[in-house]
Amino acid sequence: MTRAALERSVLRRVPPLLTDLYQFTMAYAYWRAGRHNEPAVFELFFRDNPFGGGFSLFAGLSDCLLFLQNFAFSDDDVEYLRSVLPAGTDAAFFSYLKELDCSAVSVSAVPEGSVVFARVPLLEVCGPLAVVQLLETSLLCLVNYASLVCSNAARFRLAAGPRRRLMEMGLRRAQGPDGGLTASRYTYIGGFDLTSNALAGRLFGIPVAGTMAHSYVTSFSSLEEVWPQTLVPCGGGGPIDFICLVKGWLGRVCQLLGSKTSLVREGELAAFLSYAIAYPQNFLPVIDSYSVSCSGLLCFCAVALALCELQYQPLGVRLDSGDLCRQSLEVRRVFKECNKQFSVPQFESLIIVGTNSISEQSLAELNKKENEIDVVGVGTHLVTCTRQPSLGCVYKLIEVRGRPRMKMSEDPEKSTLPGRKSVYRLLDTDGRPQMDLICLSEEAAPKAGVSLTCFPLGLTKTLQTVTPAQVTSLRLDVFTCGQITFPLKSASESRERAQISLQTLHPHHKRLQEPHDYTVALSEQLHSLVSDITKGNSKGSNFLLSN
Amino acid sequence: MTRAALERSVLRRVPPLLTDLYQFTMAYAYWRAGRHNEPAVFELFFRDNPFGGGFSLFAGLSDCLLFLQNFAFSDDDVEYLRSVLPAGTDAAFFSYLKELDCSAVSVSAVPEGSVVFARVPLLEVCGPLAVVQLLETSLLCLVNYASLVCSNAARFRLAAGPRRRLMEMGLRRAQGPDGGLTASRYTYIGGFDLTSNALAGRLFGIPVAGTMAHSYVTSFSSLEEVWPQTLVPCGGGGPIDFICLVKGWLGRVCQLLGSKTSLVREGELAAFLSYAIAYPQNFLPVIDSYSVSCSGLLCFCAVALALCELQYQPLGVRLDSGDLCRQSLEVRRVFKECNKQFSVPQFESLIIVGTNSISEQSLAELNKKENEIDVVGVGTHLVTCTRQPSLGCVYKLIEVRGRPRMKMSEDPEKSTLPGRKSVYRLLDTDGRPQMDLICLSEEAAPKAGVSLTCFPLGLTKTLQTVTPAQVTSLRLDVFTCGQITFPLKSASESRERAQISLQTLHPHHKRLQEPHDYTVALSEQLHSLVSDITKGNSKGSNFLLSN
Repeated sequence: MTRAALERSVLRRVPPLLTDLYQFTMAYAYWRAGRHNEPAVFELFFRDNPFGGGFSLFAGLSDCLLFLQNFAFSDDDVEYLRSVLPAGTDAAFFSYLKELDCSAVSVSAVPEGSVVFARVPLLEVCGPLAVVQLLETSLLCLVNYASLVCSNAARFRLAAGPRRRLMEMGLRRAQGPDGGLTASRYTYIGGFDLTSNALAGRLFGIPVAGTMAHSYVTSFSSLEEVWPQTLVPCGGGGPIDFICLVKGWLGRVCQLLGSKTSLVREGELAAFLSYAIAYPQNFLPVIDSYSVSCSGLLCFCAVALALCELQYQPLGVRLDSGDLCRQSLEVRRVFKECNKQFSVPQFESLIIVGTNSISEQSLAELNKKENEIDVVGVGTHLVTCTRQPSLGCVYKLIEVRGRPRMKMSEDPEKSTLPGRKSVYRLLDTDGRPQMDLICLSEEAAPKAGVSLTCFPLGLTKTLQTVTPAQVTSLRLDVFTCGQITFPLKSASESRERAQISLQTLHPHHKRLQEPHDYTVALSEQLHSLVSDITKGNSKGSNFLLSN
Repeated sequence: MTRAALERSVLRRVPPLLTDLYQFTMAYAYWRAGRHNEPAVFELFFRDNPFGGGFSLFAGLSDCLLFLQNFAFSDDDVEYLRSVLPAGTDAAFFSYLKELDCSAVSVSAVPEGSVVFARVPLLEVCGPLAVVQLLETSLLCLVNYASLVCSNAARFRLAAGPRRRLMEMGLRRAQGPDGGLTASRYTYIGGFDLTSNALAGRLFGIPVAGTMAHSYVTSFSSLEEVWPQTLVPCGGGGPIDFICLVKGWLGRVCQLLGSKTSLVREGELAAFLSYAIAYPQNFLPVIDSYSVSCSGLLCFCAVALALCELQYQPLGVRLDSGDLCRQSLEVRRVFKECNKQFSVPQFESLIIVGTNSISEQSLAELNKKENEIDVVGVGTHLVTCTRQPSLGCVYKLIEVRGRPRMKMSEDPEKSTLPGRKSVYRLLDTDGRPQMDLICLSEEAAPKAGVSLTCFPLGLTKTLQTVTPAQVTSLRLDVFTCGQITFPLKSASESRERAQISLQTLHPHHKRLQEPHDYTVALSEQLHSLVSDITKGNSKGSNFLLSN
């Protein structure tokens, strides 16, 4: 099976019944009133950038498109619905459900991996009222977590700086198996380099990595368990007694470092020996199963020196507990000392992997403290987004039969923006985004070099004038009358877009703490429509003027 | 398809490749050393009760058992592994992988829905070293989130008190589609009554509920959209002009409450009318799309009074924004006034549903403030476990070839307990759990009425004496040599166990804030083994005594 086919086979599995029951009761009420085929438009957006940040990354689009393309109820689904909808439901409604698909649905969307901002409509879904209503929960579910974890990854990437490699290893702590798979895909798009998740590697082509856990080390207790005991040198030749070779190196290393061989754990040495014999070119053990300085580091050096003697290149070590910075300095010092003493230039390129409940904050602190960690593995805090585990995307009705719709609310910020819209990103003379402008779709697009007036959100009474140097349209048509019209992007293509998109963003919007607010503004025309509907002056939501 | 078959078809889909790559590199190293078939034992536990609480619920067992029963690599899986494992990997290893299954694996486990505590081994997995190693990540992934969200639900249940009904509605905010499905299943087990998730209803038999969203309300703008406009009385007879009937009631309601019909939104009234005509026995609208007091509540009362006149029973209202307590009082007051004025005893049994970013804390506050909310819908905070989005379960090697194994660590609390164990729950004379005692499996079980000495965890030097009134074994054999040996429990069976298990727990362990610590203790024999291994006196992890 090709990767693309594989990717589709997994992503498309979201069944259309994975939605809230009220979508069906509403669909029935529309159907009963003969309104189910009225043209309607919903839009999807979130109300605040996550993690107190100044931006987000949009993700989940491929999943949405495959979901839409495959949207259909099975006979079993419909029988279930028949059993739970209220008794009076007309039987003909169930025949209607059996025929439903997305052939009359069209979607425009921001491309996956784009930098986006709160309140900007990311997805616009047009189609028959009952159908587009039924899509709500599934689309939200597919975008919400994907965008959240992708944005989280981007923040970890910014915190880590460009040099350090980042590995996602959160599967075991993710919210369900598919939460783990989703996390691997979207953290890669957000800027991670590697994953521990083998299935994510297979399905999405993400580079995978990993060597050993503590259990491997503790499974050994004696050198007698090492088998075979010999290793053939990299350049060829007869097998060498590897245990004997390593024991010799261990003595020299202990002497060099003033350590006692009697404190070295035999099981740990056996584990490292055995792994090195199995994978002489892939030797990267976890060295803190007992004690880094009294045992793990000494065992590593002895085995790695023996590998170097046989012309193999050991990879490095992993630290999984304690003070990673302090330990990494100690480890690097020992590596340098070994090279100085034993002339092993291979020791200069050994890497140190750190993995111990890394959070965005601890990663940022890592950058401030002296340390020698080359690769950081991140699990729980990355994949569960500890700091804010949900993005809070919503999907709101904005137009029915060509008439704008708006939800007002007891909470003002829960109000929505009515009418079909176009969204433009205005760039400044440096090519940096300076504002996202939301217009009604019938308005002419803003023009480069031509000043315009608008109402920034959050400051709705302040008219602002801006002259963009460039104007780009933020959304593209991605699904038209049941067909995907925008090529599905692979994880690495979306990752590239995310990197480019983030590069153009001004640093002050990317700051992890107290970023500058990016301006999202309404056109004058849209602003007027909002005012009219709020005052009840528009066709949008008449007051009842007579009984 | 039967529900059981359905449930299996969904749950079993976790592919064995959904694991960390290092499981394969370790499996290879074991295989290469001829150790892959050595009998080994792992155990699964968590280190701290979640949410600062005094207990947890164990969940995810059915998923684990189905995963084990179906554990096998496809040819495609193996080809992928061949492409990513280091170049020197012996080809015969891949043939070995193709033949692997869990036919030599056995598992004992705590039954799903049991109250459990930190540090107690919940699952013991025995089998060939390489196989049980390969199971690690998937088992953790299946238990971690299930137990976390189930425990979270139990806390929401405790916060809500026994009277109020709780509805889970978190699908759109869950961490991936399967995160949503998992949440629906395990929050039901933890004590929720209803879910909005239709697929969860179909697969797990959970009662589903839901009527309408704001989009339904805002999709209407005029009474002209209401169709049909008539309703046949519940008891039969000719169709009645329902719009006309409702308009009449609206005038009377506005007069009663001193409200202006001119502030009522025509679209809202049309939406309620239309829904009531479609579902006259299921009328429960969301009433805050515009303004509860100026429009939503008036429209509800008018339509509900008209329904009552036609002998239908309206259900109630949903509040989705603003101060739910205050609004619920106002709504109830109006219901009572309507009954008083119009003699509609049906208005006495109307329910008020509240849904607005409910957290455990806001639910607990609800109990302190006066309010009239009968059903609470909870989404984001429940399903994403905002307060602590991961349980942190671990899976640790405890024995190989009959010899106890232990991981020591730079972080003392990351150390593990060596050796195969039995776990007993000691009950006091009231039948309440007083202590979980972890013994080595070769020890005799404690006896009711016979005093014993043990070492409570966290106080490892303090010997404690206890005389249990009853002793129960906490784990059962659930999987033996590849076969599930314990009947898979349905969601409602596990829910019942959770309720019983929680009932017997002493209230001071169930307190949401500052609970009393429940004692988990080591037998004297296990305690000695830990000391011996830590000092290096045992076969567990010899120091290297000679070069």
